[in-house]
Amino acid sequence: MAVKMDKAALAAFLAREFPQVGADYVIEDVSDMAVRVRLIVQDKHLRPGGTVSGPSIFALADIGTYLAVLAMIGPEALAVTTNISMDFMRKPAGGADLIGETRLLKLGRRLAVGDSLIYSEGLADPVARASMTYAIPPER
Amino acid sequence: MAVKMDKAALAAFLAREFPQVGADYVIEDVSDMAVRVRLIVQDKHLRPGGTVSGPSIFALADIGTYLAVLAMIGPEALAVTTNISMDFMRKPAGGADLIGETRLLKLGRRLAVGDSLIYSEGLADPVARASMTYAIPPER
Amino acid sequence: MAVKMDKAALAAFLAREFPQVGADYVIEDVSDMAVRVRLIVQDKHLRPGGTVSGPSIFALADIGTYLAVLAMIGPEALAVTTNISMDFMRKPAGGADLIGETRLLKLGRRLAVGDSLIYSEGLADPVARASMTYAIPPER
Amino acid sequence: MAVKMDKAALAAFLAREFPQVGADYVIEDVSDMAVRVRLIVQDKHLRPGGTVSGPSIFALADIGTYLAVLAMIGPEALAVTTNISMDFMRKPAGGADLIGETRLLKLGRRLAVGDSLIYSEGLADPVARASMTYAIPPER
Repeated sequence: MAVKMDKAALAAFLAREFPQVGADYVIEDVSDMAVRVRLIVQDKHLRPGGTVSGPSIFALADIGTYLAVLAMIGPEALAVTTNISMDFMRKPAGGADLIGETRLLKLGRRLAVGDSLIYSEGLADPVARASMTYAIPPER
Repeated sequence: MAVKMDKAALAAFLAREFPQVGADYVIEDVSDMAVRVRLIVQDKHLRPGGTVSGPSIFALADIGTYLAVLAMIGPEALAVTTNISMDFMRKPAGGADLIGETRLLKLGRRLAVGDSLIYSEGLADPVARASMTYAIPPER
Repeated sequence: MAVKMDKAALAAFLAREFPQVGADYVIEDVSDMAVRVRLIVQDKHLRPGGTVSGPSIFALADIGTYLAVLAMIGPEALAVTTNISMDFMRKPAGGADLIGETRLLKLGRRLAVGDSLIYSEGLADPVARASMTYAIPPER
Repeated sequence: MAVKMDKAALAAFLAREFPQVGADYVIEDVSDMAVRVRLIVQDKHLRPGGTVSGPSIFALADIGTYLAVLAMIGPEALAVTTNISMDFMRKPAGGADLIGETRLLKLGRRLAVGDSLIYSEGLADPVARASMTYAIPPER
């Protein structure tokens, strides 16, 4: 399938639609059914002990899957998250950005399923794994 | 089992250990293997369109399970989330608080499993469901 | 909502549509958005060591959610499982039946979400917990 | 890490420990932190309509993760499944075998996390995705 929104288009969408948090993310790569997104880790993302908070890891996986869906179907679609499962496997480094690698395993008319690995920059093994389902509205 | 930390003890723990976000939550009830926690929804928890963000719902389920575990085993234990699954079923109202009802289904020596229903105050049906596993450190 | 299929109607459906396995299950109770189903545990459901196999527990949760959906929307709908998450918390007794208590947390036009607790008869605490999402076909 | 059990050792283990179902599976490949397992689809694995049943897909993901753990830590360990999440994305062909590709994302002292893609032979896209957590007993 052809990508309908490239890096620049997704970044503009993110800045416009998510003014509160859009600046925390950098879209590093967009390809067929896949995106790579960086979370610029700041104090607000940290938990005591200097690790990145669970909600911040969740948000990165969620936004990665959302952007991967948008990249393929375009910005008019208001896909919503219906299900998520995550495994937290290692402690991220507090001073390092997180990198989310998302690929879509399914992009149907009604449901999309994405799979994400979350890395703490500088560590070889992923710190978390996420699967997300998005419902795609019928009026599309 | 006897509850080791009551509402006041959990609230003090939350304020001390999570200074950035502790004030967003009110611990409303603590009983054997169960807690009820309120998220005081503020602008920072909202998404465009006036609904509560996914990461805020996630965080409420996570903190509810964490507090339910601490209530039973005490504050010395540094339990960590290892797995979560969530279903997002309805859109929360933007102007209403969220209420998380968590009960522990298992509290073993090494793993605890909690189950949460998240309500948007004023709606009868839950907006989300979450299951979480916490690993309990062996040095306990 | 009114129940569209009662115990007898669901049992007849099960026997007709699942001739290979239908006789393994007894539908014990059907009410608004909820069913209770018994798995008659036999040798084929056991694992070495005398415990009930994971796939047998999975199948009970799956069939419970399926029957709960059918009870509410009727037999014409060919709902399909799209997502499942399960926690296996305790070892079932090999010589005891399993009881699955399923309630529907959501029954939308397109998606249904069910929540099941699985009990080993005679044990107070559940042996497993399951959440399932079913997609409901649009031609309904 | 070095693989402690190769294809032949795993196959012998499967035949010995799972006499009821071991012959349904062929271990096709074992490598560092990964296995590929085939389910020889037979009548007993089918659902009406000629598709492979959900419990059969579940069982393939479960056995793949179990074998991947055993391959790395050896047969003495009685690892048990504690959590699973699965997405069912496409309908498998009834007349084709299923292939499970499992890799371990984490192999800790206490928990292992595996990720599986399940293919229906002859189809390019996966029919299902699974994540599983195994608890590894301390007496290891």
